[in-house]
Amino acid sequence: MKRITVNTARAYDILISGGLLDKAGELSRKVNGGQKALIITDSNVAPLYGGRAADSYRRAGYDTDILVFPAGEQSKKLDTVFAFYARLAKNGLTRKDLLVALGGGVTGDMAGFAAATWLRGIDFVQIPTTLLAQVDSSVGGKTGVDIPEGKNLVGAFWQPALVIADTDTLDTLPCNVFTDGMAEVIKTAAIKDASLFELLKNQASPLLEDRERIIARCVDIKRAIVEQDEREVGERKLLNFGHTIGHALEKYYGYSGLSHGFAVAVGMSWITKASESRGLTRPGTLSRLNTLLKKFCLPTDDPAPLKDLLSGIMLDKKRAGLDIGLVLLKSIGQSFIHPVPIDKTTEFLNAEGSR
Amino acid sequence: MKRITVNTARAYDILISGGLLDKAGELSRKVNGGQKALIITDSNVAPLYGGRAADSYRRAGYDTDILVFPAGEQSKKLDTVFAFYARLAKNGLTRKDLLVALGGGVTGDMAGFAAATWLRGIDFVQIPTTLLAQVDSSVGGKTGVDIPEGKNLVGAFWQPALVIADTDTLDTLPCNVFTDGMAEVIKTAAIKDASLFELLKNQASPLLEDRERIIARCVDIKRAIVEQDEREVGERKLLNFGHTIGHALEKYYGYSGLSHGFAVAVGMSWITKASESRGLTRPGTLSRLNTLLKKFCLPTDDPAPLKDLLSGIMLDKKRAGLDIGLVLLKSIGQSFIHPVPIDKTTEFLNAEGSR
Repeated sequence: MKRITVNTARAYDILISGGLLDKAGELSRKVNGGQKALIITDSNVAPLYGGRAADSYRRAGYDTDILVFPAGEQSKKLDTVFAFYARLAKNGLTRKDLLVALGGGVTGDMAGFAAATWLRGIDFVQIPTTLLAQVDSSVGGKTGVDIPEGKNLVGAFWQPALVIADTDTLDTLPCNVFTDGMAEVIKTAAIKDASLFELLKNQASPLLEDRERIIARCVDIKRAIVEQDEREVGERKLLNFGHTIGHALEKYYGYSGLSHGFAVAVGMSWITKASESRGLTRPGTLSRLNTLLKKFCLPTDDPAPLKDLLSGIMLDKKRAGLDIGLVLLKSIGQSFIHPVPIDKTTEFLNAEGSR
Repeated sequence: MKRITVNTARAYDILISGGLLDKAGELSRKVNGGQKALIITDSNVAPLYGGRAADSYRRAGYDTDILVFPAGEQSKKLDTVFAFYARLAKNGLTRKDLLVALGGGVTGDMAGFAAATWLRGIDFVQIPTTLLAQVDSSVGGKTGVDIPEGKNLVGAFWQPALVIADTDTLDTLPCNVFTDGMAEVIKTAAIKDASLFELLKNQASPLLEDRERIIARCVDIKRAIVEQDEREVGERKLLNFGHTIGHALEKYYGYSGLSHGFAVAVGMSWITKASESRGLTRPGTLSRLNTLLKKFCLPTDDPAPLKDLLSGIMLDKKRAGLDIGLVLLKSIGQSFIHPVPIDKTTEFLNAEGSR
C-alpha cells in the first residue's frame, strides 16, 4: 500500500492499494470519531460496492445509511445536493459525523460540496472508484456543482479527512471510463514529469500494468502542487492544462456528448497545436502528445467549431479578470501559464494551422 | 471612526462610524482590485441606501450592478441563493471581483454564502444596516441558509474582506428591528462584560445614546472570541447563549412569528431560570438579566410549550454528537459550556420553577 500525506491547512492521507474497500470503515475510524455515516454513491456504483462499503462502516461502529442518486453528469446539479441535505437532516448528522463519497468525480464533487456546506463543514472520506477520481478529482479539496450557466461555477475548497483509493475497483470500470481517466494521467505527465510520460509510453496495455505506481505518481505530483497553492492562485493553475477548451467542449455538447477526459484530451492537443505553431512550445511536442493520447484511445481533435466554444470560455472560471491564463507546455514535462486577453483568445487558438 | 482588525486566517477590518456609506466603494478599493461589483440587498434597504451604495462603487471604478430580493426571513432559502448565482453568472464575476452585502443579517448570511461558494470563493464586503448585523452577524465569517428542516443548516465559514458599519443607517430602522438587535448586545454583555452590562443599564433611551462605543465594544468582544476559535469548536460556542432555545422558538413559529432577537431574549431568560434554579448560576442573575431585557422592550417569556420545541433542539446544529452544549451564565459577564445529554435536555430546562 502507498500512503501519501497531503499537508494542506488540514493534513490528510491518501491510501492507494488493492483490497482497501472492506477496510474503509476501520480506516475512517482512525480520523473520525462520529456516531453516524452517510455514504453517497450513484446508481452504477451502488450495486457493485455499496453493500460492502456500508458493511465496513457498520463494522466500525457507525450508524450507517446509504444514499443512491442516478449516475451521470446530468445529476451534477444543485437539486441533487438538496436531496443530500434532506437526507443529512433526516439522519441528524452532526458536525462530528461523517459523509462518505463512494464513486467517481461527480459523486466526489457533489458529496464534497455537501460536506463543505452542511453545518458549515463536516468530515468527509473519499473512496474514488474511477481512475479519474483516483488520480485527480479526489486529491486537492476542490468540490463543485454545475449550474445551467456553466460547470463547477458553484463550489468550495474543502479537504477530505481521508482518501481511500482501492485499485481493485478499477477492474469493473467500462473501458471508455478507464480511458477517460487516462487523459488526466497523461496531463499530469505532460505538465510535470517526462519520466512518467515515458513510463506510460511503455505500458503494453491501455489498461496499465503498473497501476499502483502510476496512480501514486500522479497523486504525488498533484499533492506537491496543491500543498504549495491550495486555493489555486498560482502553480495549481497548471493542472488546468487542456481544461479551458475541455470545459468549453463539454458545455458545447451539453455535458453529455463528450466525457471530461475526452474533452480534456482534445483541449490539450488543440492548445499545444496553437502554442507550438507560435514557437512557445518545443517542436515535436504536439506529435509526442498526440501519439500518447492515441495509444490510450483518446481523441486529439473534434469537429466543434471554435467560435461556438467561446462563450463557454468567457465564463470559464479559470479566467482571472480580463486575462485568461492559458496553460501551455514548454516541452513534455514542463509547463507554464501564458496570459492572453479574453478578446485575443480566439485569435490565439486560431493560429495558422492550429485547427 | 473605530477600526477593529480581526485576525482570522485571513485578516480584515471592521469600520464603525457615521457617514461611511458614501465612502464604501473607495474603502473597498483598498482591499479588492476587481473590475466588477454586485451589490445584494433586500426590498426594504434598496430604496433607502441602494442608490447611494451603487454610486459609491461606481465612483471607485467598479462596473456595478445591484440585485434586490424580497425582504424577510422567508427569503432566506436556497432558491434565493440560486437567483444570486444566476446574476453572478450573467454579469460574469470572476474570482477577483467583489460581492457586497448591503443590509441586515439575512442579506449578509445569504450573500456571504454565495460569495463563499461562487467559483469556490470570492471577496465580499459587508455593509450591515441593522444593529443585529453590526454587532453580531457581520462579524466572524459565519454564513448560512435555511432549509425546510432547520435554520442555517447549510452554510460555510467565509470571512469578509471588509465590514463597513455606518451607524447612521440605524436611524431608519423600525423600532422593533432596533430592539431585535439589542438582544445580541445584551447577550454579549451577559456572557463576557459586566461593565458593558452596566453601561446598557445606564442608557437613557432604548435606542442608545452611546451607539458607536457600544457597537464597537460588542464587535471587539466577538472579535476576540472568533480569533481564538474561528470554526466554533470551543470558546466561540459561548456566543450561542440563548440561541438553542431561541432557534427552536423561531422554528416553532415558522420563522415569521417571532424575530431572532426576541427569540434569543426568551432563550436567555429560560436557560438562566433553569441554571439558577439548579445552583449553576449566581442567585439574582436572572432578575438582573430580565430587568435589562425589559428595559429594551424585549420579552422574557413565551407561551410556546417546551415539549413541542424539542424536535427543533434535536436538530439544532450546535449539538455535538449526543450531548448538547448548553451555554450558561456563571454570573453577569461570565459564561461557560454545560454539556447535557440530548435526552436530558427537557428535564434540564424543566427544572422546578423554571417554566
